Amino acid sequence: MKKHLLLTLMMLLSMAHLGWAQEALFSARNIISPEINPDNTVNFRLFAPNAETVEITGDFLPTEKMETPMGEMDGPGKAELTKDENGLWTFTSDNLGPELYNYAFIIDGFRTNDPNNPFLIRDVASSTNIFIIGGGHADLFKTNDIPHGSVTRRWYDSPGLDMDRRITIYTPPGYESSSESYPVLYLLHGAGGDEEAWISLGRTAQIMDNLIAQGKAKPMIVVMPNGNVIQDGAPGEGSKNFYKPQFMIPKTMDGTYEGSFEDIISFVESNYRVKANKANRAIAGLSMGGFHTIHISRYYPNTFDYMGAFSAAIMPREDATAKVYSDFDETLKTQMDNGYELYWIAIGKTDFLYDANQEFLAKLDSMNMPHEYVESEGGHTWRNWRVYLTQFAPRLFQ
Amino acid sequence: MKKHLLLTLMMLLSMAHLGWAQEALFSARNIISPEINPDNTVNFRLFAPNAETVEITGDFLPTEKMETPMGEMDGPGKAELTKDENGLWTFTSDNLGPELYNYAFIIDGFRTNDPNNPFLIRDVASSTNIFIIGGGHADLFKTNDIPHGSVTRRWYDSPGLDMDRRITIYTPPGYESSSESYPVLYLLHGAGGDEEAWISLGRTAQIMDNLIAQGKAKPMIVVMPNGNVIQDGAPGEGSKNFYKPQFMIPKTMDGTYEGSFEDIISFVESNYRVKANKANRAIAGLSMGGFHTIHISRYYPNTFDYMGAFSAAIMPREDATAKVYSDFDETLKTQMDNGYELYWIAIGKTDFLYDANQEFLAKLDSMNMPHEYVESEGGHTWRNWRVYLTQFAPRLFQ
Repeated sequence: MKKHLLLTLMMLLSMAHLGWAQEALFSARNIISPEINPDNTVNFRLFAPNAETVEITGDFLPTEKMETPMGEMDGPGKAELTKDENGLWTFTSDNLGPELYNYAFIIDGFRTNDPNNPFLIRDVASSTNIFIIGGGHADLFKTNDIPHGSVTRRWYDSPGLDMDRRITIYTPPGYESSSESYPVLYLLHGAGGDEEAWISLGRTAQIMDNLIAQGKAKPMIVVMPNGNVIQDGAPGEGSKNFYKPQFMIPKTMDGTYEGSFEDIISFVESNYRVKANKANRAIAGLSMGGFHTIHISRYYPNTFDYMGAFSAAIMPREDATAKVYSDFDETLKTQMDNGYELYWIAIGKTDFLYDANQEFLAKLDSMNMPHEYVESEGGHTWRNWRVYLTQFAPRLFQ
Repeated sequence: MKKHLLLTLMMLLSMAHLGWAQEALFSARNIISPEINPDNTVNFRLFAPNAETVEITGDFLPTEKMETPMGEMDGPGKAELTKDENGLWTFTSDNLGPELYNYAFIIDGFRTNDPNNPFLIRDVASSTNIFIIGGGHADLFKTNDIPHGSVTRRWYDSPGLDMDRRITIYTPPGYESSSESYPVLYLLHGAGGDEEAWISLGRTAQIMDNLIAQGKAKPMIVVMPNGNVIQDGAPGEGSKNFYKPQFMIPKTMDGTYEGSFEDIISFVESNYRVKANKANRAIAGLSMGGFHTIHISRYYPNTFDYMGAFSAAIMPREDATAKVYSDFDETLKTQMDNGYELYWIAIGKTDFLYDANQEFLAKLDSMNMPHEYVESEGGHTWRNWRVYLTQFAPRLFQ
C-alpha cells in the first residue's frame, strides 16, 4: 500500500515537472494513438473537449489538390475526426499497406502533433509524428531481433573548411569484434538536411541491419556527413546550438562541399578499418545530395565505383563559377573512361525534378556513359528515398 | 531567375510532402519562437488566428499550486499570450537566469508543442520544447567550439537477460586516436527512462565535453545502459518498435537488473580501452537509477570506488525477496569495509524522496559509513540531475 502510494506520487511528480496539465494526467493519459489494428487499419485518438473541429492530415490519406502561388499541387489528404460525449475525438483509417507514414492533427485550423505519440521526426524546421505498418519493404524500416550495427555521432577535422564537424557513422554488426576491413558508402542528405537526416528520416541503420541480416547487402560502413559547409553540426547539435533550421542554406551548392570532400574520405580511411580503394567506395545522395554525388564523383573521377543519384537536383549551374563545376562534360567523360561498376539514377514520376533527370539521362545516353535508371511512382519524398536505399545498397560491392 | 523559381518550388514541395498546411507555408513559416533577447528575456510567438485563448506553461514561470488526488502540489506556472490583428499570439518572459528550460502552449485548453521550435525532448511518453539561456552552469549544457567526444548507440549481449540490448556510450575527445586507457562512469536513468535519457534530457555529452575542456573532469567513458530489463532498447529503438512508453515498467526494481549488471561491465571492459579496476569505476543514477546504484554497488561490493545517488528512490523493499535485496545492512558494511573514495548523495529540498533520503543518511551515519551529502533547492527534476552530474563528475578519478 505504502509502495503503491509512493509509486503513484512518483508518477505524478514526474509528469508534473514536465508541465502536464491536470487534464492530461487524469483524463487523457491512457489514450493510445495511433493504434494499429490486426487488419492494418489504424485508430487515431485525441482528447480535445473544447475543439470545434479536429482533422487529421497525413501521407496515408489520398492526396488532395492544394493551391499554391505556383498553381495547383498535390498535398497530403485530410479527414475529419468524430467527437464523443467526453471530448475524445477518433478516426479509423482504411487498411493501410506497408510503409512508414507521417501525420498531424489540425484542431480548429491549428496544425499540431499527436500528444499521445512521442515518435516524431524532424525534417528541416518541423517535427511530424510517424508510425510504421509492417510487411513487405516496410519491415526493412523496423528494428528486428537480428544483429545490429552501431551508430556513432562523432567529430572530424576538416582542414578544407577549417573547422571540426559532426558526422554520423554506421558500422555494421560485428565491426568492433572483427579485424576485417569494410567497404564504405557515403550517403548524402538533401537541402535542409544534415548529418541527422539519413539516420532519422532515412532509417539507414534499420535498413542496413535488415539487408545485411537477410544476406541482401554486404556488410559496409555508411558515412552520413553534413553537406552544409557553414554548419559544424546539425541545428541543435552544432556550436550554433538551438535555432530554427532553414531549407536553403548559403554555400550548399557553390562547390565548397564537393571541393573539400577529400577531408571526409581521409578521416574515414584513417579512422576506420576500410578497404581504401575505388572498388570499395560508393557515394549516393538525395535531391541536393544527388547533385553533390554527381559533382563529387566526377571531380574525384577515379575514386568511386558506385554512384547513386536519388531524385537528384540536377540543375544547370550557369551561375556556378567554382572550379568544381567547370568542365562538366569533359570530367564526366574522364569518369566514364576511368570505369566504374554502377551509375544508378532513380526518380519518381511526379517529382518536380523529373524533366531535369530525363535531360541528364539523355546526356548520359548521348555520351554512351553507362548507367541504370529506376523510375518509381510518387514524387520528391522520403518515402521514395528510403526505398531507393533498399534498392541501391544490395547492388554495392558484390 | 530560373534557379530562384526552382529553389522556391523545391522548398514548397519539401514542406508539402510533410503535410504542411498552406497556412503554415504562407503565413507562419517565418515566425521565430522562442527568440532569446540580449537581456535574456524570451519572446514566444504562435500563429493561431482561430484560438480564443493561448497560454504558455513552462518551468521558467513561477510555480503554481495544482490540485491532485493527493492534495495540493507545485505545478509549472502559466501565462497568457496576447493576440494581434493577424492572429499572431505573443508573450515575452522576464529576464531569465541561466538554465535549460522547457515549455508548451495551451490553446483553448489543449496542450501542444510550439510548431516553430523543432527542439523537443522526450520524457517517458511526452515531448516538450526546450531552450537554453546561457551563462553560468547552463554553458555546460551547450555545444561549444571545443574538442568533442563521440556518442555511440550500440548493442551488447546480455547473457544474464538472454538478449541483445541497446546501450549508449560516450567516449571522451581523443579516445579514438590515443592508445590510453580510461576510467568509466556508469550512469543510470530513472523510472520511465532508458538508454536515451541521460544523453538527451541529461545533456551528458555536452556536460562532459565542457568539463573535460575546462580541465574540471578527467577524460572518462560514460556508459548509459537501459535499466528496464524487459526492453532490449528504448521505445522506438528496440525490437518492440513504436509504442507508448510507460512510467512504471515491470521488473525494473525486482533485482534482475542489479543481478545482471556484470554483463554490462564485462561488455565495456572487453570492448573499450578502460582501466578495469575499482579505482577507475564509478556508478551513479537518478531516482530509480539511484536505487539501482545503491544496490549494484553493495551487491558487487568491491567493484566501484565512486557512488552517486541523485534524488535516489530509496524505498524499503519489504516485498523484495530477490537475493539482490537481502542482507542490506551486512552488504553495506562489507562495501564500507572494502573501502571506496566517494559515496555522494544529493537531493532537492522539495523532493518527495527527501525524507527517505534523510533516513538513509541517518542509517549511514549510524554505521559510520563515509559519505558526502549535497542538498539543493528544487525537487525531483532533470534540472537538478543535470547539475548533480556537473558536480559529481569533477570528483571522479582524481
